[in-house]
Amino acid sequence: MSFDRLIEKIVQTQNPSVIGLDPKLEYIPEFIKAKAFAKHGETLKGAANAVWKFNKGLIDAVYDIVPAVKPQIAFYEMLGTEGIKAFYKTVKYAKERGLYVVADCKRNDIGSSAEGYATAYLGKVQVGANEYTPFPADAMTVNGYLGTDGITPFVDVCKKYDKGIFVLVKTSNPSSGELQDQIISDEICAVYELMGSMCEKWGAQSEKKYGWSGVGAVVGATYPAQIKSLREMLPNTFFLIPGYGAQGGTAGDLKAAFNKNGLGGIVNSSRAVMCAYKKEKCSEKDYAGAAHREAIRMRNELIKEIGEIRIK
Amino acid sequence: MSFDRLIEKIVQTQNPSVIGLDPKLEYIPEFIKAKAFAKHGETLKGAANAVWKFNKGLIDAVYDIVPAVKPQIAFYEMLGTEGIKAFYKTVKYAKERGLYVVADCKRNDIGSSAEGYATAYLGKVQVGANEYTPFPADAMTVNGYLGTDGITPFVDVCKKYDKGIFVLVKTSNPSSGELQDQIISDEICAVYELMGSMCEKWGAQSEKKYGWSGVGAVVGATYPAQIKSLREMLPNTFFLIPGYGAQGGTAGDLKAAFNKNGLGGIVNSSRAVMCAYKKEKCSEKDYAGAAHREAIRMRNELIKEIGEIRIK
Repeated sequence: MSFDRLIEKIVQTQNPSVIGLDPKLEYIPEFIKAKAFAKHGETLKGAANAVWKFNKGLIDAVYDIVPAVKPQIAFYEMLGTEGIKAFYKTVKYAKERGLYVVADCKRNDIGSSAEGYATAYLGKVQVGANEYTPFPADAMTVNGYLGTDGITPFVDVCKKYDKGIFVLVKTSNPSSGELQDQIISDEICAVYELMGSMCEKWGAQSEKKYGWSGVGAVVGATYPAQIKSLREMLPNTFFLIPGYGAQGGTAGDLKAAFNKNGLGGIVNSSRAVMCAYKKEKCSEKDYAGAAHREAIRMRNELIKEIGEIRIK
Repeated sequence: MSFDRLIEKIVQTQNPSVIGLDPKLEYIPEFIKAKAFAKHGETLKGAANAVWKFNKGLIDAVYDIVPAVKPQIAFYEMLGTEGIKAFYKTVKYAKERGLYVVADCKRNDIGSSAEGYATAYLGKVQVGANEYTPFPADAMTVNGYLGTDGITPFVDVCKKYDKGIFVLVKTSNPSSGELQDQIISDEICAVYELMGSMCEKWGAQSEKKYGWSGVGAVVGATYPAQIKSLREMLPNTFFLIPGYGAQGGTAGDLKAAFNKNGLGGIVNSSRAVMCAYKKEKCSEKDYAGAAHREAIRMRNELIKEIGEIRIK
């Protein structure tokens, strides 16, 4: 159970970012959709094919300059079983290209259901004498509302296959405080701080080769004060940081997540990279080139704040 | 946005229960697996085919005596894209048989991701000039840790298509209290009570033809005192009640969820029905018959406590 492979990729690329693959149909260039619809009709299969081609182009454009991608599974589920096939192909192809893959699926349940989810994205399933990998991701996001019973099955699968999970702690959205900021009497801390401290506890059995456990925390770039206090509270917990860019978080806002070696988290950007061609107003045929340029721009902006990234 | 169709089915069948379709491979009779593996090999496709045949038999056995089924999607996801196909076929077939279908997937996210999940299970997706229904469920379970931003997109889709959601409030597992029972200073209530009161608020815009909103709450049968207090606090919130049977909840424990008309919730049973043939020690070929008998036994046990169910 660790994020070791992710951390090694971050150091190698000198880039603490992760590209979100959230392929809303309206984000996909028209020429890709036209080709997919010509072949499969305006069907779920056609849409899923467009999603896959779009993702492939994005992966080819960034695989050597970013450490990780994070497909958000909702955009695939909404295209039914064909969408799930596109999700599988995307995860598999990103892995083949050497990327670390975080399945953003925020799963949560207890017992054998939680074990089923962990198996689906991080493990292997036994069918008779054979073993299969349903979706070959390296890490996944989970929701800890159900407590330890809802996390242990994920941790067990992570231990077996050296994978990681990111638990929702302080999310980037405006209303996240309705529950997460409530102060708990007994603990004299906020709900998100309790959740953070549970992450530290759940991750305690990790090997921590580089000082970080395999149980990370999702902490929004839109809440810089909370990033700072959580980093102090949770010295071994790696952060997945959404909310940079489109949602308003800046590189300065999230700097506190990182230690003097430039390690401590990974910053997500989805729409800014996927739709860079729209912002640049370049030809949509150059969407992959625009994504590459935006990924480089983001890396430079982050590194300027964080500095050189070193294992030690 | 409502549970009207569910409530009508409950009254019609005089049965406030829902059968969980959580097809672990070890629950499936050997003769079904042998046939599926002979046809498709010991593959994900073979396993998914066994799941589908098992479910079809269960649905045929109970469709006229229970109002609803609740497939737990983790068991399908762990079989990859083939498993998702079996999930789709199961939902579709249960609908064709007239059952109300609750997709137990505990999804959660914000913005277009949450909208994507809602669309996937409760809505329709537009592809060019055409509209498709990815997975035709009537309701789904969701996790409200992200606050109102994470629920509104689901509510919007429910309003458009007259569907419902069940939000996790007080879950049935032993460790649910780690977070859910914490007392919030400002509100002087527990986290689960705050979540419950948000359900009542989120559901306020429902039409409430029968007095119940379209935003329900998941409340475990294993916590009878909390069922009682939540029922008093949340007069318009319909409950989905797991934890009956295998987890230890009894009909007496959950009686407080129901009003004098016998309405107020729906009680889940999964393993006891799916594996009734093991408990009965009958031939595995009679698994559907055993499921039917267990569903009847459960109905009788519930109705004995709750009484006749009437709309008014």
